[in-house]
Amino acid sequence: MDFEVIYGKNSVLEALNAGTREINKIIISKSIHTDNKIEKIKEIAKSKGIVFQFAGKDKFQQYEEFNHQGVIAQISPIRYIELEDFIKKNKNKETFSSLVILDGVEDVHNLGAIIRTCVCAGVDGIIIPSRRNVQVNATVDKISQGAVNLIPIIKVNSLINAVQTLKENDWWIISTDASAQQNYYDVKYNDMNFAIIMGAEHTGVSKSLLKASDFVVKIPMQNNFNSLNVSNALSAIIFEALRQKLI
Amino acid sequence: MDFEVIYGKNSVLEALNAGTREINKIIISKSIHTDNKIEKIKEIAKSKGIVFQFAGKDKFQQYEEFNHQGVIAQISPIRYIELEDFIKKNKNKETFSSLVILDGVEDVHNLGAIIRTCVCAGVDGIIIPSRRNVQVNATVDKISQGAVNLIPIIKVNSLINAVQTLKENDWWIISTDASAQQNYYDVKYNDMNFAIIMGAEHTGVSKSLLKASDFVVKIPMQNNFNSLNVSNALSAIIFEALRQKLI
Repeated sequence: MDFEVIYGKNSVLEALNAGTREINKIIISKSIHTDNKIEKIKEIAKSKGIVFQFAGKDKFQQYEEFNHQGVIAQISPIRYIELEDFIKKNKNKETFSSLVILDGVEDVHNLGAIIRTCVCAGVDGIIIPSRRNVQVNATVDKISQGAVNLIPIIKVNSLINAVQTLKENDWWIISTDASAQQNYYDVKYNDMNFAIIMGAEHTGVSKSLLKASDFVVKIPMQNNFNSLNVSNALSAIIFEALRQKLI
Repeated sequence: MDFEVIYGKNSVLEALNAGTREINKIIISKSIHTDNKIEKIKEIAKSKGIVFQFAGKDKFQQYEEFNHQGVIAQISPIRYIELEDFIKKNKNKETFSSLVILDGVEDVHNLGAIIRTCVCAGVDGIIIPSRRNVQVNATVDKISQGAVNLIPIIKVNSLINAVQTLKENDWWIISTDASAQQNYYDVKYNDMNFAIIMGAEHTGVSKSLLKASDFVVKIPMQNNFNSLNVSNALSAIIFEALRQKLI
């Protein structure tokens, strides 16, 4: 198997906790001071029978460009989930489910922040297209603080086909668009399975996806400054959905 | 005067639009294709009598590390606002005002995203401490898409003194803390001047500021994953405050 390298305390710790990917080996730098997280990493690795070893600075030199914090792990690539499996699994749940669909998000920082936000807000899955979207690599893993291991990520060849499949399975589709009439907080998120489509920063959600959506909503922008970062826009919407669920 | 260099179409355009900082000169690369934004930059520069000139690739070589998009501007440094002036100005408003206070935000991406979010959500000002916090430099300007020019930024030596001054002037202080009892959406944001304190990503809001706060709130985290990016956390809270105002 081709292993990937993930780096940083949180990424390695979350990968260990999640247990969804095979960890070949954990390497800890000899020159860092141990702390709670490092101890936790060693403890879980031991209990799971995962090899960890200590290495000198030379081993870490090749990862210098990454903020590795003295810990890396060789790990199997992220396992993408099939949309059909996701839909089937969520059909059996007693509560409604939620999805975030990314239509052309290109920045690793944004993707990492979006994955973290989705996990914190209890979103059930993320759909990304196999082209024209940043993929889940080690940098995204690190920025997401390992959240990539805590949420099903579904990669599809065609977003429009995925949306059609969702609609046929009783999912409701919500797109965001600056020129929408309805505000995002006017939607009642709690009596349906919903998928929120977030567009690329400059071009927004594709026309075909907008057309296929059941709701098109906007975030009301102040100061005539219509330039909210995509992860911050998602955060406003998805935590409103969570608020409606919790109150 | 020492001019700073800002780069990128949005940064230059917003600086021109805002007109709050003196622009010495705009330089446009000869090797880029013009587009709506470039035309707009030239048009506004002309109307305001600001010099713009075209330069070859060699001029831009020194800015290679920045995503300059073929446009830079020499501009006076951002003008920080005095807290007392801010308070006085907002006292005369007919509606209540809002502030975001950053307690140790260290990442330029986060600061840039926070400034954008604040402008989009209609926050009236941002307070940053003069130490232990990333400062507003050209990278932050770029990431904020020029939003730094659209919101008063107040730099203070002591956050605790600033909070005391605000409280004496009928402002209410809200801190965020993972162990808070109250959820952020339980606060009624609309019948007071409020300042929200956001802490550093790893250490949170300082104890002294938590103690001085009128409200301490949390974002209810799902999946036992308590690691929301600071700009995404702010986005959830500040758009809830805006929602309460608009509904």
